[in-house]
Amino acid sequence: MKDYLDFAKEIARHAGEIMLKYYHSDNGADYKYDQTIVTLADKEINDYLISRVKETYPTHSVDGEEAGFGKSDFVWVCDPVDGTAMYARHIPTSVFSLALVIKGISEIGVVYDVQGDRMYTAVRGKGAFVNGEPMHVNDVSLDDKRSLGNFDMWPAAEYNLFDVFKELGAKTYAVGLGSVIRASMCVAAGDFNFVLFPGTGHKNCDIAAAKVIVEEAGGKVTDLFGNDQRYDQPINGAVLSNGKIHEELLSVIRKHVSPLS
Amino acid sequence: MKDYLDFAKEIARHAGEIMLKYYHSDNGADYKYDQTIVTLADKEINDYLISRVKETYPTHSVDGEEAGFGKSDFVWVCDPVDGTAMYARHIPTSVFSLALVIKGISEIGVVYDVQGDRMYTAVRGKGAFVNGEPMHVNDVSLDDKRSLGNFDMWPAAEYNLFDVFKELGAKTYAVGLGSVIRASMCVAAGDFNFVLFPGTGHKNCDIAAAKVIVEEAGGKVTDLFGNDQRYDQPINGAVLSNGKIHEELLSVIRKHVSPLS
Repeated sequence: MKDYLDFAKEIARHAGEIMLKYYHSDNGADYKYDQTIVTLADKEINDYLISRVKETYPTHSVDGEEAGFGKSDFVWVCDPVDGTAMYARHIPTSVFSLALVIKGISEIGVVYDVQGDRMYTAVRGKGAFVNGEPMHVNDVSLDDKRSLGNFDMWPAAEYNLFDVFKELGAKTYAVGLGSVIRASMCVAAGDFNFVLFPGTGHKNCDIAAAKVIVEEAGGKVTDLFGNDQRYDQPINGAVLSNGKIHEELLSVIRKHVSPLS
Repeated sequence: MKDYLDFAKEIARHAGEIMLKYYHSDNGADYKYDQTIVTLADKEINDYLISRVKETYPTHSVDGEEAGFGKSDFVWVCDPVDGTAMYARHIPTSVFSLALVIKGISEIGVVYDVQGDRMYTAVRGKGAFVNGEPMHVNDVSLDDKRSLGNFDMWPAAEYNLFDVFKELGAKTYAVGLGSVIRASMCVAAGDFNFVLFPGTGHKNCDIAAAKVIVEEAGGKVTDLFGNDQRYDQPINGAVLSNGKIHEELLSVIRKHVSPLS
């Protein structure tokens, strides 16, 4: 697993360079709302990952947000730039995410916050780290004044969680960083106590790496209804928490939302 | 006004240095949730402002979030660190904000995003700038796919806007940067089309500088019910928008929320 982790970190560092290259190429006017810089960065990172996997692990496959290839029990699941709306607007909360998923289970996760130069890593059973330092979830309750959750929403999300937010919002401070993966790293590092992900149906790349990292930091990750998730199939949104408040979050969600499938 | 603007920018740059000093003094573990770094930065910036105003404009007064002094028609209204929860957690979205309010009207606004080195400035009637470059609001409708708003909420907020968010959320992508002032600068720069501020009763320091900057960028700023705001008295939350969608936002708010005073 050590070789796989080193490989994933190397990909992440190069992805970070690509993110910075296009981030700074924007002159602040020409690209306004234009998805060009996002598309270029996303595609270049995705293509780089595919070429490196083909070269290094030719029997593995790739499930990237932009493109993939192959069919194998070993799948590199990647979100080249999570938080693209933030990236395009120069708000430094977007990250690169890569997981090695073996038979549906994410065994290795690497998330890189290039703007803050924070490399989040985990290998299943070996703990979670940020820049090599161990990290752990917190033990903050929802009604603790230190409680902080992440509530991003967008019109095309799979589940409408506004009634959930309304009930939770009476107890806890909530932000929305525009990147569910960046926010999930805040759970792993003990800065947030939960993240709700309203889902995008077919997309599992947002959660695959976060799953192993948050779990190795001592937290819990399920779909919105408490089921475990596999990353070789669609997922039903996600709850990522410090574990302590997981059941409480699920019970609020169940009151307001039903599974679509 | 030029002297006042230069003075405000000088204060902002020094405030940024103080923010970075405490931001980096945190070793990532000792200060977890401890409000120490926030308190130290807030207080040091507030004290610095007071001493500089006393020395340079002894007839003016200061209304800082942490402390103030004097009673004058010329008031320096300051939020030393807006987005303290983000600052304490090393998420780079917190800013310094300073307005010169003359007889209740903010005439000069300076907001400094030290992590991104972006200095936002405006003098009433003279336009809005970021690092000296003119900036303008966008003309994006709520149902445009580029629409992006800011929805921070916390349990002690003056108004509960979750029903408003639910109705707007069906149309527009929403984030919550954890700093209403940072998000307001995104409106001024044309990156977001609106910000809703659920209010904190007595506090007007969150909006005083943003008001003149967003208006000089071509946008509109009112309380949650469409009334103009003065910054020598409490405010009723705030709506900061590109202007084009202002009435539409107000009509959604009026449906769900009534003024408390």
